[in-house]
Amino acid sequence: MDTLISKFPDLVGQAVTVKGWAYNVRSSGSIAFLQIRDGSGFTQAVVVKTNVDEASWQAAVDTTLESSVEVTGTVSKHPKQEGVYELQASSVKLIQKSEEYPIGKKEHGPDFLLDNRHLWLRAPSQWAVMRVRNEIIYATYDWFRDHDFIKIDSPILTPNACEGTTELFEIDYFGERKAYLSQSGQLYIEAAIASVGRCFDFGPVFRAEKSKTRRHLTEFWMMDAEMAFVEHEGNLKIQEELVSFIVKRVLENCAAELKLLERDVEPLKKVVAPFYRLTHAEAIRILREKGSDIGDMDDLGADDETTLTQMYDKPIFIEKYPAAVKAFYMKRDPSDPTRVLNADLLAPEGYGEVIGGSQREDDYEALVARVREHNLPEKEFQWYLDLRKYGSVPHSGFGYGLERLVTWICGLHHVRETIPFPRLMNRLEP
Amino acid sequence: MDTLISKFPDLVGQAVTVKGWAYNVRSSGSIAFLQIRDGSGFTQAVVVKTNVDEASWQAAVDTTLESSVEVTGTVSKHPKQEGVYELQASSVKLIQKSEEYPIGKKEHGPDFLLDNRHLWLRAPSQWAVMRVRNEIIYATYDWFRDHDFIKIDSPILTPNACEGTTELFEIDYFGERKAYLSQSGQLYIEAAIASVGRCFDFGPVFRAEKSKTRRHLTEFWMMDAEMAFVEHEGNLKIQEELVSFIVKRVLENCAAELKLLERDVEPLKKVVAPFYRLTHAEAIRILREKGSDIGDMDDLGADDETTLTQMYDKPIFIEKYPAAVKAFYMKRDPSDPTRVLNADLLAPEGYGEVIGGSQREDDYEALVARVREHNLPEKEFQWYLDLRKYGSVPHSGFGYGLERLVTWICGLHHVRETIPFPRLMNRLEP
Repeated sequence: MDTLISKFPDLVGQAVTVKGWAYNVRSSGSIAFLQIRDGSGFTQAVVVKTNVDEASWQAAVDTTLESSVEVTGTVSKHPKQEGVYELQASSVKLIQKSEEYPIGKKEHGPDFLLDNRHLWLRAPSQWAVMRVRNEIIYATYDWFRDHDFIKIDSPILTPNACEGTTELFEIDYFGERKAYLSQSGQLYIEAAIASVGRCFDFGPVFRAEKSKTRRHLTEFWMMDAEMAFVEHEGNLKIQEELVSFIVKRVLENCAAELKLLERDVEPLKKVVAPFYRLTHAEAIRILREKGSDIGDMDDLGADDETTLTQMYDKPIFIEKYPAAVKAFYMKRDPSDPTRVLNADLLAPEGYGEVIGGSQREDDYEALVARVREHNLPEKEFQWYLDLRKYGSVPHSGFGYGLERLVTWICGLHHVRETIPFPRLMNRLEP
Repeated sequence: MDTLISKFPDLVGQAVTVKGWAYNVRSSGSIAFLQIRDGSGFTQAVVVKTNVDEASWQAAVDTTLESSVEVTGTVSKHPKQEGVYELQASSVKLIQKSEEYPIGKKEHGPDFLLDNRHLWLRAPSQWAVMRVRNEIIYATYDWFRDHDFIKIDSPILTPNACEGTTELFEIDYFGERKAYLSQSGQLYIEAAIASVGRCFDFGPVFRAEKSKTRRHLTEFWMMDAEMAFVEHEGNLKIQEELVSFIVKRVLENCAAELKLLERDVEPLKKVVAPFYRLTHAEAIRILREKGSDIGDMDDLGADDETTLTQMYDKPIFIEKYPAAVKAFYMKRDPSDPTRVLNADLLAPEGYGEVIGGSQREDDYEALVARVREHNLPEKEFQWYLDLRKYGSVPHSGFGYGLERLVTWICGLHHVRETIPFPRLMNRLEP
C-alpha cells in the first residue's frame, strides 16, 4: 500500500510503500540506513542485507544523497525514541540516482543557497518554513470565512500609484500607455465593501525600492482586509483576533516544524488578544527616555520599532500617527486633527511592523482635500472618490505582509527564506 | 443588536439593527419600503409612518438609491413568500445620501458598466458572481488541504518565458535588466515537489496577447498543482475529483447566488467524476464527421472545443495531443512518441477549456533535447533541468483558469464579469 510518512503512527506493523528522496545515507557491509523524505515527513528505512533480495541491497548501497527511491517495508516504532517511526525494508528501488548534489552538509553562504533555491527548498529548515507559511495562509482563509469575509482579488496592473508613492515597477501596456505593478490592493477592495460588506485580498505586490535590508523583497505577498461599518476600535479588535488565531493554529499544527527550526515557542504562546496599545505620542516619549532624539511628529523607523517590541511580551499597536507621515486616505482623529485613526502592529522579540491599518476617510469633501494636498491626480482617483458619494459608510481596514509574519513566527533573521522564490534588487533567479 | 441579513432565519421576532445600502426604494404617504443589502444578503425594511418617530420617517422618505442606511426593527417572515424575511422598522437613520447614482434600472452597455466597475460590483448579479468565485476559491483550498497539498507561491517576476512563448509583459528591473510577468508558475512549483511532495500555487498571471475574445483577460488568476509520483492516469483522476468537488460545493453553498444568476443547475448536477475521455485522434475524427476540415495533427481551436462540449453532458478530457502543438516539458507517450501524455479538460455546454495538464518529462537527456528543439535558452533553464538530475521522479500537474471556471459555473457569456477589476487590452481602469 502506497502511503505517506505522516501516516506512519497509524500503520505500525503494516506493510507499506513510501516514495521519496534520500536526504542521508549510511551503510556498512550488512546494513544500510536510508533517511527518506516524502514531503509529508521524514523516516529512516532500515535495510538489512539478509532480509532483502540482491537487487534491493544493491539499490540501497547505490543510493546517494537526494536520489529518488521507493521503499517497501513494515512500519515500526523506533526502539528508543518516542514518536519516531522507522521502515523495516523488504524491498528498495532506486528511481533516479543523484550525482554530486551541490548542497552538502557544510555551511554554504546565502548567495550560494539562493542561487540553488530550487534545490535548497528541500532542506528540512526550508521545508519547515514553507509548511508554516502554508499554515498561516490557511489560518487566514479559515478565520475570514468564519467571520463573513469574501475574497475579492485586487488587480496588479494599475494606472497609477495606490498611495501616491514612487518606487513602482513600470510596464509598457500594448505600446499605448504605462501601467504599474500594484503596491497594495486596498483602494480596490474598499469599492467591494458596498457589495459584499467585508472582504479581503491576498496576493503578490511589488515595491521597486532600492532597499537591501533584511526586511525587504521586491515581490512579496500581502493580505488586505476591509470592513464596512467598522471604526478604529473595531479594526484593532479584528486584527488582534486574527493574529492570535494564526499563531494558535501554527502552534497546534506545526509543532514539528517549529521544533526543527529551533523556534522557542514560549513567546508565541503569549500572543493572545488583547494586545498592548501605545499611542504614537506615548511611543515617542518612551523612545526619548531610552535616549532617542526622535521628534514629536516623526515616523518610527525600524530601529525604533525594534526598541519598543523588545520591551513587551506581546504584539503592540502603535496608534494615531501624525497625519503628515501617513497615507492620504486615513481618517483624521476627531480629537486631534493633526493625527490619524491608524495603527501599526509591531511583532514582539524585535520583529517590528507586521500590519498597517486605519479607519478610512469617508467624507467626500475631506477626501478631495487630501487628494489635492498630496498632489494626486484627482481625475484618476475619481472612482475612489465616488465611493464617498454613493452611500459612503464608516469603514476600516488593514494589511499584513505575509513574509514578515512568517519571519516572526518562524523566528528567522531574514525575510528572504520565507518565500519560495525570493526576488531582490539583485536577484531574479532561479 | 447589530446583525447580518443572512442571520435573519434564526432571528424571527427579535429586535435587530442592520447597516447597509438601499438598492430599491418605494414610499407612499404612510408607508415606505426600503430594500436593503448589507453584503450578506437582501431584505426589505417596512417603515410605517405611525410606527416610527418623525426623524426616522423623514430618513426613510429621503433615502435614495444606494444611500447608506441603518435600520432597527423586528425580523419577520414574509407573509407570502417562503424563506423570505423582512424587517419591521422601528427606527431609520440615513448615513449618507446618494445623489444621482449613475447605474439605473435601464440597460447599460458593457463599456459603461466596466467604466463604473467600482459601483457595478454592487449589482445583485455581480454580488452573486463574486460570491461564487469566493466559493470556488475556498473549495479549492479545502480540497488541497484534504489531499496533502501545500501552497507554494510561484514568482511573478521572472527572467524569461515559462513556456518559451512570446506575448509577455516586460519590465525594466532597476535599470539593469529586463524582467517579465509570469504566465504560469508551473516550472517553479515543479521544484517544490521534491520538498513537499504535492503543492499548488494560486495567483495572478499575465498574458500580453493582443486578443479581444470573450475568453481573454490580460491579467487573470491561475491555479497550478503539481504532484510527485503521479502519472498521466492519476493526474486525470485528481483533476476530475477536484472539479467535481468544486461544483458540488457551489451547488451546496451558493444556491441563492445561482438562482439570482438564473443559472440552470441541472447541467451542473451532472458534473460528477469520472468525466468523459477522448483522445485527440478521436476528437479529430468526430470533428471531421461534423464537417470540420481540421488536420490530423492540428491543435483544437475554441470553435472545435465548443462543438465537442455540446455533444456531452459532462466535462471531457481530450488527451494525448500531438507533441508539436504542446509545450516542451510534456512527457511523450511511450506508445506513440509523436504525442504527449497531456489532457485538456473541456467544460460542457459549449464552455471549452478550463484545465490544461500533463505528465512532465522527467528524463534529463530527453528534456535537454526538448529545450534545444524549442530554441529555449539552455542556461536559463538549467535550474529546471537540475530537477531531473537530482532525484528525478515521475510527476504530473495541471492548471485551471479561475475566471473560466467562474464563467462556466455561473453560466455567463464573457469572462470579464468574473474578476473584480478586469484588465483587457484597452482597459486598465478603474
